[in-house]
Amino acid sequence: MTFVLVAGATETATIDGISAAGETPDLMAHTPAADAELVAYGRPVFAPFVPVSPTGCPTPGLVTRAVRDLVDFEFVVADAGLAARTAAPTVSFGDRPGGDVREREPVPNARALYESAREYAAGVPDDLVVGETIPGGTTTALGVLRALGVDFDVSSSLPDNPLSLKRDVVADALDASDLEPGDCAGTPVEAVRRMGDPTLAVTLGLLRGARERGADVTLAGGTQMLAAAALAQHDGVEGSFSVATTSFLDDDESVDVRAAADALDVSLSVTDPGFVRGAHVATDHYVDGVAKEGVGMGGALHLAAEAGVPMADVRARLLERYDELVGDDGP
Amino acid sequence: MTFVLVAGATETATIDGISAAGETPDLMAHTPAADAELVAYGRPVFAPFVPVSPTGCPTPGLVTRAVRDLVDFEFVVADAGLAARTAAPTVSFGDRPGGDVREREPVPNARALYESAREYAAGVPDDLVVGETIPGGTTTALGVLRALGVDFDVSSSLPDNPLSLKRDVVADALDASDLEPGDCAGTPVEAVRRMGDPTLAVTLGLLRGARERGADVTLAGGTQMLAAAALAQHDGVEGSFSVATTSFLDDDESVDVRAAADALDVSLSVTDPGFVRGAHVATDHYVDGVAKEGVGMGGALHLAAEAGVPMADVRARLLERYDELVGDDGP
Repeated sequence: MTFVLVAGATETATIDGISAAGETPDLMAHTPAADAELVAYGRPVFAPFVPVSPTGCPTPGLVTRAVRDLVDFEFVVADAGLAARTAAPTVSFGDRPGGDVREREPVPNARALYESAREYAAGVPDDLVVGETIPGGTTTALGVLRALGVDFDVSSSLPDNPLSLKRDVVADALDASDLEPGDCAGTPVEAVRRMGDPTLAVTLGLLRGARERGADVTLAGGTQMLAAAALAQHDGVEGSFSVATTSFLDDDESVDVRAAADALDVSLSVTDPGFVRGAHVATDHYVDGVAKEGVGMGGALHLAAEAGVPMADVRARLLERYDELVGDDGP
Repeated sequence: MTFVLVAGATETATIDGISAAGETPDLMAHTPAADAELVAYGRPVFAPFVPVSPTGCPTPGLVTRAVRDLVDFEFVVADAGLAARTAAPTVSFGDRPGGDVREREPVPNARALYESAREYAAGVPDDLVVGETIPGGTTTALGVLRALGVDFDVSSSLPDNPLSLKRDVVADALDASDLEPGDCAGTPVEAVRRMGDPTLAVTLGLLRGARERGADVTLAGGTQMLAAAALAQHDGVEGSFSVATTSFLDDDESVDVRAAADALDVSLSVTDPGFVRGAHVATDHYVDGVAKEGVGMGGALHLAAEAGVPMADVRARLLERYDELVGDDGP
């Protein structure tokens, strides 16, 4: 099994109030590159810091790395077009961040991203677990869902999901792209090109290529990964996918992730890391509903559970990593 | 421990008769990218084939991968400027192949390669094993040795080392760079810029960065790695290095690798994979003195020996991989 972290950027993340995947909008540009380094090496290398939300919630990448300390798995980063350099080992698919979804064509290279990711996944002799790191990614996921004519909603890295803001942004984006909802049904690459972000193009290509080879794919994430499954369905990819996500996503009252999974014929597995309020400042953010998912957190927790690693061990390792890298004892 | 394969290209490889790291000079451009994929995934992904020498000797990358099937280790490719795309996970340092060593400045970006590799190695929290894949690399290694004023010779991927050809090429290169032997003593980055190749700049940076952090470094290779140790010595890097190489290199009568190691205060470990003439066409090439080293073969064999893996297991796995990918049953 190879864990592929699809990392990229979209200008959409800079819309005020849209994402918690960085302490400030400026610092958000470093988040995917830093997440990739965290999972690869256990610490930032070129990145200037460990990503935290505006309120101090550490990136879910720290959870994924804590699992990787306990469960051995192959890890590669699929670079869909990062906004900052990374020291993590990457397979390069894109060379530029995506534009604002409210532009006519935020992902002009969607077709090339899709084709090269498809070729890659068709050639790699392994089952895949696919996660993502892209601030603003739930908004672009909502964009492609509307373009496809799929009408479920998306979650958020913020405790109060700014869904009405996202819907307004997506409405503006449809206008800018001269599209009505559903106009891209059956043309998923076009949906990404006009309404998505670069990681969705790469993820769709990975799904298609892996399936052509008969490989298993686990989508590690929340509503962005459900959007990827919807894209695959519209691409005629056969067979169902499994999505592995967190209990925080499942608990999100702003979306019905189980109904969405059912509608897409996706098998959903939910893993609860057992964070308890008051146990530690790092995990309290998650209990409060910050972050919820990302950097393949749900998929990593699922791998830990499958390997028989107790969640108490994952929590202990996470807090060690946090104290070492983020807390008062950090570098 | 992280195994770093420094992969790159130099126009020097296209000089007739200089390298066996490809079936033809045209195909040689694919060798480093294909080697990287082999070690990463066990098979070519984007690369059109498994590299073989003009006489059919499979790349030593196949040996390194056979070991990786038996001994688990982290693996990253340091891209010093590949001539072909690769699906292997890479840390990107350079964006272009090196020029012909007979140009005035074959590695104009030597300083940038060195600095970014140094920063990388200083930040990665791990001991390193460093190997290389670059056709023509022994000739550029000879070039930097002469520029430094170090007077031992280099080995070859050909059974009959074309040393007089290499010496002529290096003499022309010194002329083109307006240098006398020893003119770059104490200025190793300059030696690489004027007389080397991109992988030597990255390898030197890795050595320096890792040593600044107090990490252990094993140089996995032959005379190119001894040249890297010489560069590090001229860069003021403190402490000695260990070089892990193959018995084929040690058996090469055209160079005295033990004397060179002694002169550089380098501890040399030699591992014999126990290839026996007549056992298999794939290993007979090695018995005949083709390839000898490369893609970290000696370092990988050393890791296998350290892990207590019998060489018979390595040989069996190598032949399985060969039959699957190169032999008559290949794809």
